[in-house]
Amino acid sequence: MATGTSGAPRILALAGSLRAGSFNKTLLRVAAGIAGELGAEVDWLELRELNLPLYDADEEAASGLPEGAQRLQARIRAAEGLLLACPEYNHSIPGVFKNAIDWASRGAGNPFPNKAAALLGASTGAAGALRALMQMRLVLAGRGVWIVPAQATLPNAASAFDESGALKDASARKQVTAAVQQLLQQVQRLRALPA
Amino acid sequence: MATGTSGAPRILALAGSLRAGSFNKTLLRVAAGIAGELGAEVDWLELRELNLPLYDADEEAASGLPEGAQRLQARIRAAEGLLLACPEYNHSIPGVFKNAIDWASRGAGNPFPNKAAALLGASTGAAGALRALMQMRLVLAGRGVWIVPAQATLPNAASAFDESGALKDASARKQVTAAVQQLLQQVQRLRALPA
Repeated sequence: MATGTSGAPRILALAGSLRAGSFNKTLLRVAAGIAGELGAEVDWLELRELNLPLYDADEEAASGLPEGAQRLQARIRAAEGLLLACPEYNHSIPGVFKNAIDWASRGAGNPFPNKAAALLGASTGAAGALRALMQMRLVLAGRGVWIVPAQATLPNAASAFDESGALKDASARKQVTAAVQQLLQQVQRLRALPA
Repeated sequence: MATGTSGAPRILALAGSLRAGSFNKTLLRVAAGIAGELGAEVDWLELRELNLPLYDADEEAASGLPEGAQRLQARIRAAEGLLLACPEYNHSIPGVFKNAIDWASRGAGNPFPNKAAALLGASTGAAGALRALMQMRLVLAGRGVWIVPAQATLPNAASAFDESGALKDASARKQVTAAVQQLLQQVQRLRALPA
C-alpha cells in the first residue's frame, strides 16, 4: 500500500539508461545500498525490461497504454519515493528516459502525486549531469513530485568507482547519502501529512 | 552542397511529434510556407519515417548507427538551416524528439555545427511550449547550432488554425514570419562567414 503509515519506506530505483554498464546504474546501486542500510525497501527497475515504444498519441488513442507503461505506472504507484539516476545527453535528459516519464504521465492513473524523489546523475565529463538534473526538476515538479533539495552529481564517472562499484571519493558518497536521507525523511513527512 | 554560397537557402523542416494531426506539424507547415515564399528550398522530414529505436549505447557499440539515424544526419547535413517545431510534454522536450536529437549527435559525423535553427512550439495550453523551447536552446547550443533569437510559441493551439491550416491570429503569423526571416538571414551570414 502506497499510503501505509508504518513499515519500511518503499523506494523505487530507476536509472535512465539502457546501457548494461551504465555509470548511472553503478551510482544508483550505491544509493540503493545506502537506502537499504537506512531501512528502506528498494524495488530496482530496469528501464530495458519495460520495452517501451516511442510515445505516439495516435497509438495511445488506438490501443491505450502499452503494457510496459502500465507496468512502470504500477511500480511508481507502489513506491513512496523515487531514487532516479539521470544521465546527461546533449546537455539535457536522455530522450530514452524522458520517453519513459512521458508514458508514465499518460492515461487515467497519474502515479506521481504524493511521491518524493531524489535525483542522482553521473557523467564522464566535468558537468556530472547537472544540466540534466535541473531539467528533471522542471519535469517532475510539473507532475506533482516532491523532489528533495539535496542531489548527487558525479563528474568523471569513468574513474569514480573502484572494482567493487563503490565510490572512491568519500565526499561523493556523502553527497549520495545526504540525498537518500532527505528522500527517506520526505517519505515519512508525506506519510504523516499526505497531500 | 551544404557550403554553397548561392542559390536558395536549404531549410530542413522537422516536427518533434509522431501524431499525424499534430498541431506542431500544422504550425510547421505555416512556417515552411513562409520560408518558401521568402525563397527557401524546404525539405520536409517526418520523424515517423526515420523509425528510430530508443538510444542504447550497447546497441550503438555493437551495430553502429541505425539506418534512420544515418538518414536523419544526412538530411541535417544537406541543410543550412533547421526549422524545428517542438511540442511540450511534461514541461520539457518530448522524449521521442530528444531521442532523435540524441541519435543525430552520435557517430563520427556530427551534422550540427555551422547550422542555423529557428524554433517553433505549439501547445493546447497557455504555455505555448515555451518551457520546451528554453530547453531546446540548451540542447542545440551544446551541439554548436546557431539558434536565432526570435521564436514562435503558440498557446491554445486547438483553436488557433482555420480549416485550411492557416493561423487565425495575424500576430501569431507575424511571430512565425519573424523567426523564419531571422533563420534565412543567419543562413546567409553563415554562408558569408562559415565557422
